[in-house]
Order: sequence, then C-alpha cells, then structure tokens
Amino acid sequence: MKSYPAFFAAFALWFVASPAFAQGVGSRVFVVERELGQVAVYDYLKRDLRKKRIKGLGNLHHATMTFTPDLKYGYISSRDGKLTRIDLEKLEVAGQVNTSKNSIDIAVSQDGRFIATAEYIPGGVTVLDARSLKVVGKIDAPPMKGVKEGDSRVTGMVDAPGNLFVCTLMERREVWVIDANDDKFPVIKKIALPESSGLPYDAMITPNGRFYVVGLLGNPEVAVIDLAASKPTPRIVSLLDPNKKYDREAPVKLPHMASWAVAGNRVFVPLVGEKRLVVLDRHTWKFVASVPLRGHPVYAVRTPSEREIWVSFSGEKDDSFIQIIDVESMKVKRTIEAGGKIYHMDFTSRGAYALVSANRAQKLYLIDTASGKIVDSQPLSSPSGVFGVWRAFRIGL
Amino acid sequence: MKSYPAFFAAFALWFVASPAFAQGVGSRVFVVERELGQVAVYDYLKRDLRKKRIKGLGNLHHATMTFTPDLKYGYISSRDGKLTRIDLEKLEVAGQVNTSKNSIDIAVSQDGRFIATAEYIPGGVTVLDARSLKVVGKIDAPPMKGVKEGDSRVTGMVDAPGNLFVCTLMERREVWVIDANDDKFPVIKKIALPESSGLPYDAMITPNGRFYVVGLLGNPEVAVIDLAASKPTPRIVSLLDPNKKYDREAPVKLPHMASWAVAGNRVFVPLVGEKRLVVLDRHTWKFVASVPLRGHPVYAVRTPSEREIWVSFSGEKDDSFIQIIDVESMKVKRTIEAGGKIYHMDFTSRGAYALVSANRAQKLYLIDTASGKIVDSQPLSSPSGVFGVWRAFRIGL
Repeated sequence: MKSYPAFFAAFALWFVASPAFAQGVGSRVFVVERELGQVAVYDYLKRDLRKKRIKGLGNLHHATMTFTPDLKYGYISSRDGKLTRIDLEKLEVAGQVNTSKNSIDIAVSQDGRFIATAEYIPGGVTVLDARSLKVVGKIDAPPMKGVKEGDSRVTGMVDAPGNLFVCTLMERREVWVIDANDDKFPVIKKIALPESSGLPYDAMITPNGRFYVVGLLGNPEVAVIDLAASKPTPRIVSLLDPNKKYDREAPVKLPHMASWAVAGNRVFVPLVGEKRLVVLDRHTWKFVASVPLRGHPVYAVRTPSEREIWVSFSGEKDDSFIQIIDVESMKVKRTIEAGGKIYHMDFTSRGAYALVSANRAQKLYLIDTASGKIVDSQPLSSPSGVFGVWRAFRIGL
Repeated sequence: MKSYPAFFAAFALWFVASPAFAQGVGSRVFVVERELGQVAVYDYLKRDLRKKRIKGLGNLHHATMTFTPDLKYGYISSRDGKLTRIDLEKLEVAGQVNTSKNSIDIAVSQDGRFIATAEYIPGGVTVLDARSLKVVGKIDAPPMKGVKEGDSRVTGMVDAPGNLFVCTLMERREVWVIDANDDKFPVIKKIALPESSGLPYDAMITPNGRFYVVGLLGNPEVAVIDLAASKPTPRIVSLLDPNKKYDREAPVKLPHMASWAVAGNRVFVPLVGEKRLVVLDRHTWKFVASVPLRGHPVYAVRTPSEREIWVSFSGEKDDSFIQIIDVESMKVKRTIEAGGKIYHMDFTSRGAYALVSANRAQKLYLIDTASGKIVDSQPLSSPSGVFGVWRAFRIGL
C-alpha cells in the first residue's frame, strides 16, 4: 500500500453526504430478554443497542425468531401459544395471534407466503398466511394408541427444499412432510420412527436441507432421514464413542438438536454430561472422532467459512468460556473468555463477527472472529436467543 | 389437513391490516439493462417490475453488483471506471466515484466497512470507505518484467474469511491477499502462479471461502489455491477428460470463472466449445466425470440445496433452454425452455425460485423450482446480470 497519488484522484461525480449514516435492516440482531418476555434490537455495524424494547411477547423460554425473505417482518412464538409479528423497519409489534396454548417452533415457507407453528398444547400444526396473519390451515396430529390421550405434540418445525415443511410428531413417533405449494397443506409423507426407540423430542435439518435429524428420548442415538430419497426411511445413528466403555444403567442426557454443527464433511455434536464433542461423517453418519473439551458442551456452532466450531459450556467453572475447534485437525485452537453463562452464539452472515449472549453476566458480546477480541458489549436483562435477520436467507432457520 | 375447527379459533389480540402490503428490501433483485447503462428493480415476492430505472451507471459490460451487509446500499462498477452506489430503499443513485478508466470487479469487506475495486486501466486496486465513498487506499500492481509496461491489470476481486480481500494480478502472474482489518490495507500474501502457465485472466472463490480458483489464458488448466493453508501454493488442475483424445493444436476456449458451480463434494465446470460439464472432486480437485449436454454450456449454477445444477447454453439452437443436472446421479433430469439467449441465472436465497434473464427475448423470468414452471415474466431491454440483495450474505459474491 502506498499513498494515494494525484493521478488517480477520485473525482466525486455526484455525491450527497448524509450527516447521520442511515442504516438498513440487514445488520439488525434480535436478542430475547427471556424473563421479561421482550426482545432487544442491536445493530452490529453501528454497534448500537436500541433503548426501546419490543414487549408483550409472552413466555419466551426456548423461543426462536424467524424472518420473511423480504425482510419486512420477523416472527416469534411463545410457550403460551402467541405468535407475534414484528416490523423489522419500524421495530414494533405488527400483529399477534393465539395459535394454541403452547407453541414450540416456527418456520417460514421458502416462497415466503406461509408460517407454520409446531404446537404442544393442543398438539398439531398451525399454518398462517404471512401477509394477513390469518390461520389458513390446521393439521391434526393424532397420537399412537396408548401413548397419550387426544393429540401428539409437534416439534422440530423447519422449511425444506421444494417449498416443504418438515416436523416431528412426538407421541405419534412420526416425521411429517407438508407441501406448502398446495393451499390445503397436505401431509405428503409420513415417516415412521422405529418403535424400539424412545419418543422423538427435537429435530434439526442440515444447512443444505438434505438430512433431517431427530433426537430420541432416553437413547444415545438419533434417527437420520435423507429427505432427498424417493422413500425416506430413518437410519439410527449412535452417538457413543466405540472406543469407550459406558455404564448401561446411567441415564442418557439429551443434546439440544439446534446445537449441532455441520461443517465440511463432518457433524459436530455436543454431548450433554460428557466433556467432548462427537464428530460424525456427514455422508455415512459414522463415528469419526471425539474432541476433548474443558467442560460439558452446550452449543456447537460453525463459522460461515466452516473452518471453525465455536463451543459453549454448562457449569459455572466453564460457562463463560468459548472453545474454538479447528474443523480440519479437530483440535481446540483457541479459548475465549466472555461473560458468565453463555446461552447462544450466532455469526454475522459472512463470519466477520460472533454475537454471544451471556445470561448471568447479562451481556451481549460482539467478538471479532479474526482476532478473537471482544469489540463491543452491551447490557441486557436475562439475554438468551440471538437472531440476526440474515437467518431469512438460510434453509432450516 | 382438515378444516379449521372452532376450538382452535385464532384470536387476533392485536392486528392492524395495511391496505397495501408493504415490502422490505430482502426480495429485491437488480437486473442490468446492459446497452442502456442502467439497472431495473424487480421484487420477486410482489412479482413487480418497477417502472423507473436507475440510470447513468456507465458501460455495464460484465458488471456485477454487490451489497453492504446492512442492505442499505448496493455497488456497481463499470468498464469506464465508475463506481456507483445505489440506495436499496429509495432505489436511486447515492453517490458515484471515478476509480479508474476501466474497472472489472468489486467486493465488500466482510465487516462491511470497505469496497475494493479491481482495476484494468490503470491497473491496481482501489479501496473505498463504504460510508463516505472516499478512496482510502490505492494499491499499485507492478507487472512482471517484459510482460507489460506500467502496471498489471487486476481481476477476480473477492472477500474471504478473516476479513480479507483476494485478487489476481494478470501481468504479474500473482494472487494477492489484502488485509481489510488494517486501515493501511497491506498485501499480506503474494502467491506466485507457475511461469509455465498462461497469464491468469479471471478467478472465483468457493462458497465457503476456502479455495481460490484462477483461470489461465490459453491453458486447459486452472490454478487452485487453498487459502486455509499456512503457506498457500497453487495447484494446477486439468479440465481435460482423461478418457478423451484432444487435438493439441486446437485453440483452448476459456470458461468464465463465475460460471462454476460447487455442490456437495463436486465442482461442475462448463467447458466452452464442448457439449459437456466437467465434474471435479471438491477436495482432491481430480476429474470425476463428464456430463453430456444438449449444447455448449455457458453458466452452471447450483441450487441452494446443492441437489441440482442449472445450465445455460450458447448458440441460437440451444440458448433458450436450461438443463437441470441432478448432483447425485450427474445426469440431466429436466429441461426447461424459457426465452432466447439466456445470460444469467440466480436462485432466491432458499431456492424457491430461479431468476433468469434472456437477452434476445428481452425478458426476466421467475421460475418455480419445485414445478419447473415459469410463474412470471417481465419485459426488459438487453438484460444481462441478475443480482438479488441476499448476495450480501454470501462469501465471495
């Protein structure tokens, strides 16, 4: 780099400088303030936390937020069955609907026209028109005989290629594929999970929308379904390290499925109650390796470059640390200390920054991924989920 | 799906219906009207082509458009050296700067702060502040001795993980890595290309930002650089089918590097002048297969699910057709006819639609990827490049 010579002098043909640099919606991040039932809005480019909160959103335990492809609206569903629409420009509530008494998951159809919510009480699926917020479909979820009265809880709602929704019926032990191209929302595939396994409790889809992975209650196994197959059938994959001895009587603790990271040809799974990540092959789903860690992992998140996995921990001794795993060598390459009880991590869309919420420290951190340094921190009340609007442009988020 | 029972009746707690459904910026697509030096704006969710054009953008041959991560601005550079900033909300010019007499490529840094332009005349790199549009860096590009007087043309400008820029110096036969974390924009790596090869003429980066692939003039080979390596060195990869005999004296035609598609573990390369795609292994870069096609391919674009490659063609007999290759079987699974001389294809971010410009037919088509049907078409003048704002959230675009 040398100084800028006169010969190349840039000539401003037409240029109006605005005193305050107006910002678009693309760098906005919504952070759930869980105990207050509200969300805060942070702009990571301005490094500005908006004072005003978006309130009255209900019980936000395990709440996730999804966005329409035009970035006009975001949606958040609550454990007391409220679906709230938030205007991403005006940053205010733009509609609220009761879909049930307890909702767990939402997804926006890939064509942007519909919202599907997975319901717990009563169980089933609600489909809403994204524009009018009217309920346009209600799909019943009858349980298996003898498992539960009335209806089956539904979980793991995601969008999938072909403008489909995929979800899991817990007390029916089935995965359902719903066609969002048809205004009647037919269930076009019902995929039975093995009866020998525990009930399904949660699910995730790989970033390319190909594999749907279902967690099974009380089992050290998951069911993997290849959605690209003409007749998708579940394949049972063990999370146990074949090189290790296990106490068969010990209770199996369950990983939160949203905490899995797919990077390159590998899947990194945090095992609750063990100080390691399991690494599986993305194509064969076979065990590849265990990655030893400083504590019990909670979340594993891949960087957009798929070169690193960032891991958060449970337990006061470890829960303010993030360990960074190199995907290639499967070894810890760096440890960052942020604030107590890290809950959620997300990366900006091309990976320049990580956004990290710490519940005990009551902070949101902006971490420069190139240097590993915390470049901004903001005070928040009981922060949990962190959702950048760019999730609108990813399959399954 | 059954009808919506009264028991589940959704109760609108708070809902204001707006007469016209306001739309955000996320579904806006910019289409270059090449011969008029202007761009048209299409909203694929509204299916609405805005009447007013954005004009005075210069010579837009081979022009690409990039967007800031906050989705406030887009940038387009011209073959007569103009860099124009476009306000994505107001849809009007918001600044124009002459950076050279001929620019070819631009990239926005991953932290959203800087724009780098690759210059042809005079050669070199210009770095501008995204906020003020002021030139904040000018990097000289001296050529190799005896190749060219004065300066080297620069091409293949992309952003890369670590908040870096990567570009190719044609008459210097080098790839340069520029650090955008440092306000002096130091060239932190200079990677020499083999002297035995032709001059580099264009380059692309794989979607995860790992491999930088450089086309070599007059050679049926490319140089592949692993940017994650501690000392990146080029590896020469042949595009020839080892099972085929070639006339060594025949002129080698050059694929446009932006036309390569990376999907799953494979790279699909359209070969100019041959009726096939070459398939390479994404990791070893070895030849995997040839996919026979109806004509001479121009562009190969992957769907966001990475399950399909859409291919356009040259020659009046073929150039209104798109052939869709199944990534798994590497076979043509469907052929779609649109309009004459298809120039560019892009998919909406999660893959529900393809956007296709046809230059002779003077049309923009919106194709439903699930059904393969054209669901909208709009009249345009000499349409070429099609750029959705969601490119802001992808590495290397």
